Amino acid sequence: MNKETYNKIAGQDTGRIIAISDGVFGVALTLLVLEIRVPVLESIRSEQDLIHAFVALKSKFLVYFLAFMTTGIFWVGHSSQYKYIQESDRNLNWINLLFLLSVTMLPFTTAFLGDYVHFKFPVAVYWLNIFLMGAMLYINWVYACRHHFVHEETRQLVDIPLRRRIITAQSLYFLGALLCFISPVLSIAFIILVQLNYAFAFLSQRKKTPALKTES
Amino acid sequence: MNKETYNKIAGQDTGRIIAISDGVFGVALTLLVLEIRVPVLESIRSEQDLIHAFVALKSKFLVYFLAFMTTGIFWVGHSSQYKYIQESDRNLNWINLLFLLSVTMLPFTTAFLGDYVHFKFPVAVYWLNIFLMGAMLYINWVYACRHHFVHEETRQLVDIPLRRRIITAQSLYFLGALLCFISPVLSIAFIILVQLNYAFAFLSQRKKTPALKTES
Amino acid sequence: MNKETYNKIAGQDTGRIIAISDGVFGVALTLLVLEIRVPVLESIRSEQDLIHAFVALKSKFLVYFLAFMTTGIFWVGHSSQYKYIQESDRNLNWINLLFLLSVTMLPFTTAFLGDYVHFKFPVAVYWLNIFLMGAMLYINWVYACRHHFVHEETRQLVDIPLRRRIITAQSLYFLGALLCFISPVLSIAFIILVQLNYAFAFLSQRKKTPALKTES
Amino acid sequence: MNKETYNKIAGQDTGRIIAISDGVFGVALTLLVLEIRVPVLESIRSEQDLIHAFVALKSKFLVYFLAFMTTGIFWVGHSSQYKYIQESDRNLNWINLLFLLSVTMLPFTTAFLGDYVHFKFPVAVYWLNIFLMGAMLYINWVYACRHHFVHEETRQLVDIPLRRRIITAQSLYFLGALLCFISPVLSIAFIILVQLNYAFAFLSQRKKTPALKTES
Repeated sequence: MNKETYNKIAGQDTGRIIAISDGVFGVALTLLVLEIRVPVLESIRSEQDLIHAFVALKSKFLVYFLAFMTTGIFWVGHSSQYKYIQESDRNLNWINLLFLLSVTMLPFTTAFLGDYVHFKFPVAVYWLNIFLMGAMLYINWVYACRHHFVHEETRQLVDIPLRRRIITAQSLYFLGALLCFISPVLSIAFIILVQLNYAFAFLSQRKKTPALKTES
Repeated sequence: MNKETYNKIAGQDTGRIIAISDGVFGVALTLLVLEIRVPVLESIRSEQDLIHAFVALKSKFLVYFLAFMTTGIFWVGHSSQYKYIQESDRNLNWINLLFLLSVTMLPFTTAFLGDYVHFKFPVAVYWLNIFLMGAMLYINWVYACRHHFVHEETRQLVDIPLRRRIITAQSLYFLGALLCFISPVLSIAFIILVQLNYAFAFLSQRKKTPALKTES
Repeated sequence: MNKETYNKIAGQDTGRIIAISDGVFGVALTLLVLEIRVPVLESIRSEQDLIHAFVALKSKFLVYFLAFMTTGIFWVGHSSQYKYIQESDRNLNWINLLFLLSVTMLPFTTAFLGDYVHFKFPVAVYWLNIFLMGAMLYINWVYACRHHFVHEETRQLVDIPLRRRIITAQSLYFLGALLCFISPVLSIAFIILVQLNYAFAFLSQRKKTPALKTES
Repeated sequence: MNKETYNKIAGQDTGRIIAISDGVFGVALTLLVLEIRVPVLESIRSEQDLIHAFVALKSKFLVYFLAFMTTGIFWVGHSSQYKYIQESDRNLNWINLLFLLSVTMLPFTTAFLGDYVHFKFPVAVYWLNIFLMGAMLYINWVYACRHHFVHEETRQLVDIPLRRRIITAQSLYFLGALLCFISPVLSIAFIILVQLNYAFAFLSQRKKTPALKTES
């Protein structure tokens, strides 16, 4: 058996992992809107009524926006890693599937948070969900590096910033979750701010990084 | 570090952006039909009853068609841009995600419009949704051009027509939205006509553009 | 402007069309099962009750199978065409979107058929849906050929079989639909048989076509 | 007609099969979570109530986890085969569609199992679903090998392990299903253990397979 054939058998590109992940992310992002329901006909008589009914949905919109941002942040994070990961094996398939498991939980934990914003428990559940996503993404990267699925030269450059980014973000989320002992609403507000920072960092970062950009 | 490795790290192709976008668009297009429910069994006794129940769904079908067309128009617009955009970075990822956010809102705003066709407010909401999609698509293109993600020679050729197309369409949508002060139904009819024009332009355009075709 | 740049602008590969189509088909195929609901807890007391409740779902399973087969047949048909279509333009994008519009209608028209199997009208609606899918697929192919998106040598070989396949299938579906004037159930049974024939043709066809295989 | 053109017509790559499959798997994985509903507002008055309501969902979470694992196992299995399958034809398209049919049934059969854990019949239905997935995957591989869609050198290396893996797994599932005559809960527990073994085999297997890794 020649080298080429062997590689074809033992190695595996990351195409399928990326495809199933984009599938799951795409569906998750689109399903979130189903939580917002059009207000029912009977109770609406005037333009005024309609605007009131619409404004009443504001917490639903906020939760929708929050869930979309969170899903987006982790999609960008996943994207960044697989930009560098060149190969995969069965274990990486499963680590990625467990990451996706935590992603698919997000619509539930966000809805749970949205329905009970004045309680501590849903904040804990939501935090746990974000923690699991971060942990799996971290494991994913470490596993890929250890099994030489990332080009060595590349690894040396991006390993530290990629890990640090996850750890910093997770520390902030943990801090945010702890705030629920003061007030759950404060806790949620803090987490949203952290997320907005990660999503819209580009507004401020543009000038700071002229050389090498590493994505979250 | 050699040039090639550096490019691998700093640059990024647009594969993932396109994949997540087609995922979101694919789900959005397919979910729309779930709004149309099969009429319930009890009330149906004859073939006549069934036809009546079916015809009663006509506004649902119209809204479904409208939402499908709008989603389609923006998918074609997105397609056209990413045909020319060769590279991406983290910011483009987020600009595109915000565009997708506005796309996933469409099933809601269209259903809202469909349920309250005689009110002005839903027209405003629907228009705002279309405006956001157009704005994000415009920002997407300008950002890509400014960061040299579009080949210079190509940019010179397609920049003006691509921008003009968005601005013209958005002006017409805005005009349509204003018509709701005369009559919301008139407003919707006008918007549908504008959309049909963008979707089915090929019926008339075929002979007009022998040389260079730029897509909406 | 050199030739290569021009081609990049005027031409367009079929990647996005295929991606959005597989997205829509993938979602449509998976959503179909949501129509089958697990029987409710209260009424079930023994193993016997459970089996009865399950058997009562048989028409739901049949409709599910029918819709899956129909969607599958048109996915294979779409696949076959885009195997040969090398390029696309804005019009082909829209022809394909209208084809997808008819595909996304299928879950509705099949559910409508499944709920009213003893009526003529749902058979007509279902037939119209299949007719629209077939018509759009036919237009798709003719348009692609006329605009030289299919390699000439290839076109000469597959044009006739591809067209004939659609026309034969559509004739059989039309005949099946007409049978509803005798009995709607007979009509459905006939359509199912036609579809099974297209899906499982390989059981018999294997020996007949040693040279060139053209897919439905 | 030259050789190249002929190959373009008669052969077919596996791109579309993989795309539609990842679409279906992606949607299936994400839809599963919709079965878990956020507990309703009225009944919740204290943090305690909320925790109780959440804990009451535990069987829903277990079933969700089970369905996700099963879908994941078969996605990995499908992935492994199409890593080696280089070509496809119309029949392989249909064999794969029937495999996907059994995949899309899984959300239903799992929910059925989850709602009636103390009955034998749902275990039988669930087992039948897993059996069909395994059988179609087996047929898929045998068909691909027989029609020389797998490189001969590769086939010799992976044929035996790939087949054996399916047969071993299916034997264990069958044994698990038989256990329902002792106790349905025991049966489910056994099946979950078998699945966990397949999913997390990497925890133990890492050292055993230094040379050639064949994926389940």
